[in-house]
Amino acid sequence: MAAKFFSEKNLKFILYDVHDAEGLTQQAYYAQHNRKMFDMVLKAAGKLAKDMLFPLFKEMDRTQPELIKGHVRVHPSIRKILNEFGQGGWITSRVPFEHGGEQLPHLIADACDFIFQCANYSANAYQGLTFGAAHLIESFGSKDLFDTYTPKMFRGEWQGTMALTESEAGSSLADITTMAEPTDSDFHLIKGQKIFISAGDHDGVDNVVHLMLAKIPGGPPGVKGISLFVVPKKRLDESGQLISNDVTTSGVYHKLGYRGCPIVQLSLGDRGDCRGWLVGRPHQGLKYMFQMMNGARIGVGMGAASMATAAYYTALDYSQARHQGRKLAQKDPSLTPIAIIEHADVKRMLLFQRAVNEGALSLLMQCSKYMDMQIVGDADQKTKYGLLLDILTPIAKTYPSEMGIQAISQGLQCLGGSGYCDDYPLEQYYRDARIHPIHEGTTGIQAMDLLGRKVIMQNGQAFALFVAEVRAAIAAASEYTDLQTYTRQLETCLSDLEKTTAELIGIAQTKGPAYFLADATLYLEFFGLVAVAWQWLLQGIAIQKRLAGGVRKKDREFYHGKMATLTFFFAYEVPKTLGLQKRLQQADGLTEDLSTEHFMD
Amino acid sequence: MAAKFFSEKNLKFILYDVHDAEGLTQQAYYAQHNRKMFDMVLKAAGKLAKDMLFPLFKEMDRTQPELIKGHVRVHPSIRKILNEFGQGGWITSRVPFEHGGEQLPHLIADACDFIFQCANYSANAYQGLTFGAAHLIESFGSKDLFDTYTPKMFRGEWQGTMALTESEAGSSLADITTMAEPTDSDFHLIKGQKIFISAGDHDGVDNVVHLMLAKIPGGPPGVKGISLFVVPKKRLDESGQLISNDVTTSGVYHKLGYRGCPIVQLSLGDRGDCRGWLVGRPHQGLKYMFQMMNGARIGVGMGAASMATAAYYTALDYSQARHQGRKLAQKDPSLTPIAIIEHADVKRMLLFQRAVNEGALSLLMQCSKYMDMQIVGDADQKTKYGLLLDILTPIAKTYPSEMGIQAISQGLQCLGGSGYCDDYPLEQYYRDARIHPIHEGTTGIQAMDLLGRKVIMQNGQAFALFVAEVRAAIAAASEYTDLQTYTRQLETCLSDLEKTTAELIGIAQTKGPAYFLADATLYLEFFGLVAVAWQWLLQGIAIQKRLAGGVRKKDREFYHGKMATLTFFFAYEVPKTLGLQKRLQQADGLTEDLSTEHFMD
Repeated sequence: MAAKFFSEKNLKFILYDVHDAEGLTQQAYYAQHNRKMFDMVLKAAGKLAKDMLFPLFKEMDRTQPELIKGHVRVHPSIRKILNEFGQGGWITSRVPFEHGGEQLPHLIADACDFIFQCANYSANAYQGLTFGAAHLIESFGSKDLFDTYTPKMFRGEWQGTMALTESEAGSSLADITTMAEPTDSDFHLIKGQKIFISAGDHDGVDNVVHLMLAKIPGGPPGVKGISLFVVPKKRLDESGQLISNDVTTSGVYHKLGYRGCPIVQLSLGDRGDCRGWLVGRPHQGLKYMFQMMNGARIGVGMGAASMATAAYYTALDYSQARHQGRKLAQKDPSLTPIAIIEHADVKRMLLFQRAVNEGALSLLMQCSKYMDMQIVGDADQKTKYGLLLDILTPIAKTYPSEMGIQAISQGLQCLGGSGYCDDYPLEQYYRDARIHPIHEGTTGIQAMDLLGRKVIMQNGQAFALFVAEVRAAIAAASEYTDLQTYTRQLETCLSDLEKTTAELIGIAQTKGPAYFLADATLYLEFFGLVAVAWQWLLQGIAIQKRLAGGVRKKDREFYHGKMATLTFFFAYEVPKTLGLQKRLQQADGLTEDLSTEHFMD
Repeated sequence: MAAKFFSEKNLKFILYDVHDAEGLTQQAYYAQHNRKMFDMVLKAAGKLAKDMLFPLFKEMDRTQPELIKGHVRVHPSIRKILNEFGQGGWITSRVPFEHGGEQLPHLIADACDFIFQCANYSANAYQGLTFGAAHLIESFGSKDLFDTYTPKMFRGEWQGTMALTESEAGSSLADITTMAEPTDSDFHLIKGQKIFISAGDHDGVDNVVHLMLAKIPGGPPGVKGISLFVVPKKRLDESGQLISNDVTTSGVYHKLGYRGCPIVQLSLGDRGDCRGWLVGRPHQGLKYMFQMMNGARIGVGMGAASMATAAYYTALDYSQARHQGRKLAQKDPSLTPIAIIEHADVKRMLLFQRAVNEGALSLLMQCSKYMDMQIVGDADQKTKYGLLLDILTPIAKTYPSEMGIQAISQGLQCLGGSGYCDDYPLEQYYRDARIHPIHEGTTGIQAMDLLGRKVIMQNGQAFALFVAEVRAAIAAASEYTDLQTYTRQLETCLSDLEKTTAELIGIAQTKGPAYFLADATLYLEFFGLVAVAWQWLLQGIAIQKRLAGGVRKKDREFYHGKMATLTFFFAYEVPKTLGLQKRLQQADGLTEDLSTEHFMD
């Protein structure tokens, strides 16, 4: 297995050169940090990833979770890993000092998650979910809940989960039937079933704390009647001992990939003794949960970009080491075969992977930056960056998820037959990555969220802010001669996106929501290409600045390689908007109108 | 698991309405057959697929081949399956009467393979390889070789293989090092290693007959020095007993999918006693092998289309049964959830699968038809259909392979989280299908073959014949009002393809082969879209003829569903040519020129 699973140089380029992570230390909230400390944190993350997570990547896949006598057995290293994440302050990296955390900028904390996920996505999922769940309690729960649950969670001793899905309520959460009966005490009695709960039970922790959606009887129908509860697997009795909370693990899924982390089915209240503690106010559960879910969606995008990045470095390594064939002009079969990276088509496959991965990473880091700006900004800025995050979340989730699969597939292809065999990790990345367009809201759901909600909300304000951000990048880039071609191309496809958006909104008004949203998935793809082109242009500016400043030979290769990747993105990827635009302009309602009887034969 | 894995109605529509299989019975060579008999053959294939192959689809995946004490153990049913294929005359379906076969048209025999592969791709591979290997002996071997090997192969008692690849010679066969030393007897002594040999050893047969490429010392370098040998695992001694032929199985691969069939490593002549019998003349081996390889390439396309077809019917079944969410106009959460097939985006995903699968099947059947026309035609026709097959082979291999993966991925997506779990077969189709862009020549190799060889050979004759075929379809379609839109669209993108081809040939002349072929893979994708659009237009003509003739209500739904799928292909898939054309016109040699140092960082 290749030793390299990410590029520290590229990560730092995106953090510091493109998104000015250092600038955040000028803000009071982050003033206790400095660049040197950020670098140390990144280095420590790299070390943990290399020494502990990456060596277990393949092994955790081979020993998938099993349900044994009602308990889920996972790889024996999980306890040690979670302990390390807890002790090292990784789970609390974003938690404010006042709550015992490290108060790191999202940019840096998310970069660490990127490193961890490049090394071992499944291993990182345990801590990521735990942070998300604890953060929900921190944000919306009582002090009592905070004091009871978060310390153990922050230390990695208790697992956190998000427990939303039910067998009849996946994409449609309105239809959950898990009930929470009020009692005379401070808890509700929970009864129901949950499915597809990541890390929902395992023997690497002493307890599991579910942040669970349920309905309180008598509440409004649909999503407006959903409340959020803390439902631990084991609860504390009066003496402070952990006792059963009537949460039963009824099944564990055997999955295509992502096998290092269990996904389970839960049965709640089989004995009528499952207690749940309300978080915040009744019937506000989905709103609260969306905090975790939005974070989780961007986190999925990051996981997808990470896997694709690790896969790329394996493909690159193989393409450099493997010799096969000769240059086209060399007809003499007695010449020594060349490394396959010399073949144009292999370079094309590698550049495609880089263009997708480095573009996606930049977009994800842009989101992290907006989160930081939201934290440190005034009321207007909080609104602005909140809106930008709102509109970018479905893109940041979907672009890396959908394109990451394509990138990994091309990485596998670089290895030929070896890519199909489990002597190399590509087949595992290929399996692992397929989860991303599904979990935390499928691509279709993200598309509806983008076009049906985010683009039109508040009279199109979020969309206008996005367009303004892209135009600002175009203006900044126009100063550089070497970026002219791309600046013009981005201006054109941004205008095309605006035009298409206006046309679709016109259709919403004349033909209603069904026609408006029928091709939302294609719109999402179009939007994603524009957003990533924007990020490549931002990278282009940073590259040009560096090259203008004079760099060492070795660094020059790096920046020229980045420029070639940028060129590739604009030459091969951006033209895909042409076909998408053509289809979106038709808006003929073909899929909406087609009778389901036409599928019969 | 869904009971349905292909549509007999659609298959017959493509066979009889689109490609006039019945018309072949007018030809002397096929005059002993008739439509009724064809239908009986198809019915028998369906029964074998349903009763024997499909029930083993999942089980064969779960019990993957293992190398135990030097022998490969496969699923215990393989012997029975091969026996059935042999006894039923399936292995010899295309073999002439004079050689003991059924002399069926390729159209019908290939349709049967399609059915078998929809049910269980791995299971069919054993017989497909056996036929291909026996057919090589039949075509180019001596009567003695024919009499010694083919009877057992035709009966499914001995396995046939194609043994080309070596560890240092995959895509580049010029570099094989397996040697064949002449002896005083009728055999050569073989020494070398082979890797990635499908069905290269297993306990479901009594013997394995390798059709193997090796070099005779003193021959020309490169591909011109490759000869073809029959190298059996066990050879017959003077008393007619099978004895070891010094062929050792040194490894079996553990693969992402396609696990029902072993892929093995072979070591030849470890004891200096491995005998090979020359097929045909020395140094002509690659030319002979290409007969099998071309058949195998189209066979890979068929396998890919088959898997995607089976995956589609599972996705369709799930989408009809699974209820989730409501129509966009229905805001009331107390309304009963609808079947997810009612959602436009699910219909889009299903139509995408149909558009790809049914388009690919029609293209593959077009190739089968050309094979039949080649057999029955005069010298000129043999040349014509041979050229059409030459140019279509890389498309027929690649379009179903690359797009089949996308189609299966969309099928998996229809199932959401369930698609990712092994309770449903989608995850297996997803794994199985990834082999297709790799084996029998990767997509990159097919692309070079198409643009670098087939398009330009004989002064562009094959390309001109293809264009003429498409234009003939356009002319025929122009009689139907309901096809006008698509006729115009195809005319446009065919002209675009001609224009792009001419530009690329210009680049070959001015800038040399490296620039000419740098984006051959994109050219292949472009060509594939045009070829499948052509096939959809042919289907459109057949649909319009049917509808004009008056059909029953149930059939009307079928034809309207086909028309909707045609409409989908032209609305969603054909516009992808715009972006491809844009990139191909640049031809700036970006990938060719990029120094490999730029990948360092």
